Amino acid sequence: MSNKSFSNISIAVIRRLPKYHRYLKELLDKEVSRISSRELSKLIGFTASQIRQDLNCFGGFGQQGYGYNVDELYNEIGRILGLNKNYNVIIIGAGNLGQAIANYTNFERLGFEVLALFDINPKLIGVKIRDIPVLDMDELDEFTSEHNIDIAIICAPKDFAQEVTDKLNRKNVKGIWNFAPTDLNVAEGIIVENVNLSESLLTLSYLLNEKELLSG
Amino acid sequence: MSNKSFSNISIAVIRRLPKYHRYLKELLDKEVSRISSRELSKLIGFTASQIRQDLNCFGGFGQQGYGYNVDELYNEIGRILGLNKNYNVIIIGAGNLGQAIANYTNFERLGFEVLALFDINPKLIGVKIRDIPVLDMDELDEFTSEHNIDIAIICAPKDFAQEVTDKLNRKNVKGIWNFAPTDLNVAEGIIVENVNLSESLLTLSYLLNEKELLSG
Repeated sequence: MSNKSFSNISIAVIRRLPKYHRYLKELLDKEVSRISSRELSKLIGFTASQIRQDLNCFGGFGQQGYGYNVDELYNEIGRILGLNKNYNVIIIGAGNLGQAIANYTNFERLGFEVLALFDINPKLIGVKIRDIPVLDMDELDEFTSEHNIDIAIICAPKDFAQEVTDKLNRKNVKGIWNFAPTDLNVAEGIIVENVNLSESLLTLSYLLNEKELLSG
Repeated sequence: MSNKSFSNISIAVIRRLPKYHRYLKELLDKEVSRISSRELSKLIGFTASQIRQDLNCFGGFGQQGYGYNVDELYNEIGRILGLNKNYNVIIIGAGNLGQAIANYTNFERLGFEVLALFDINPKLIGVKIRDIPVLDMDELDEFTSEHNIDIAIICAPKDFAQEVTDKLNRKNVKGIWNFAPTDLNVAEGIIVENVNLSESLLTLSYLLNEKELLSG
């Protein structure tokens, strides 16, 4: 299975995998060793049929009448998600959001190691977040030349985000996790995952009003 | 159209609306007054056919051979997203993430007014983020009784998130924007929108490895 490419799996399935991973971890912590798709369904809230279908995309791990081996499934989904590796990470922008991410030790436990934060604010440069230094943005070029960076997290303001991305485009950064509310132009081969908080908040406000329309 | 319920619109369409809204705002700022679905397609990256289909769900605003009136479309999508109203907001958890959100003035411009943050950390209680006070968690019950809260933003740690939600369940909070990496049990009628950062990061790491599998 290790040589199999999953490129024909829909992004909707991929986006459900981390949720399986999280729930399986909770089961492991509770020392549950096996679980049926029906029980998993009650827990996660996806239908049992969807769960079987999702996991079949990757070869299927369940056995009829037995269910899933929790430990095996957890490890296999972790492997599919790339969690059998470590990732060198930098954070661009050491404001509240950048600091929040640098402080989130769970990412480190999953194998994402933040090497440095970068900022232009003299008050932040030289500060340490846990043991992670905040460096001057001017050092970004040199740092990304000297270190093999897997993921750059962009927590810089919108108007600054493309400028930073242009710098990263020239380096061998593999992925960008973008929190700036703008669509970045990246060099070919760089993967971008956007977290657009406004879009999420506006979805909530839509749903609040949809409900009012229904009850009104 | 104002009495029409949109409850049969798929969530996928809804989640694209804020993106239309953002790009239309940029067009307005550039004083572009009308745009075809083809031009909009180039800008946003959705196909022209998808754009026409999406906007048709809400009655359709385009005219054959003319395109869309940018100002009209921007305002109408804003109205659909509930941006013709103001929302009273509280933030539970005044750590880096809570502060980042409180500092994000764009949300305020869209009509989301943060009235207060709440925390249990004595070092944070009494502090102001811009002009917004950080209050003691013990004051949450009283505050939510005295104020009409539309949205509570949960930036509290995972293990604390359900406890907070239980308090909110007893009040007339309408929506929860949840940043804690856990699925909340909410009272009937409360709308939850989750932002699960781990799930987004793990999607990125999956995509990074999918690429390697393809090129390897």
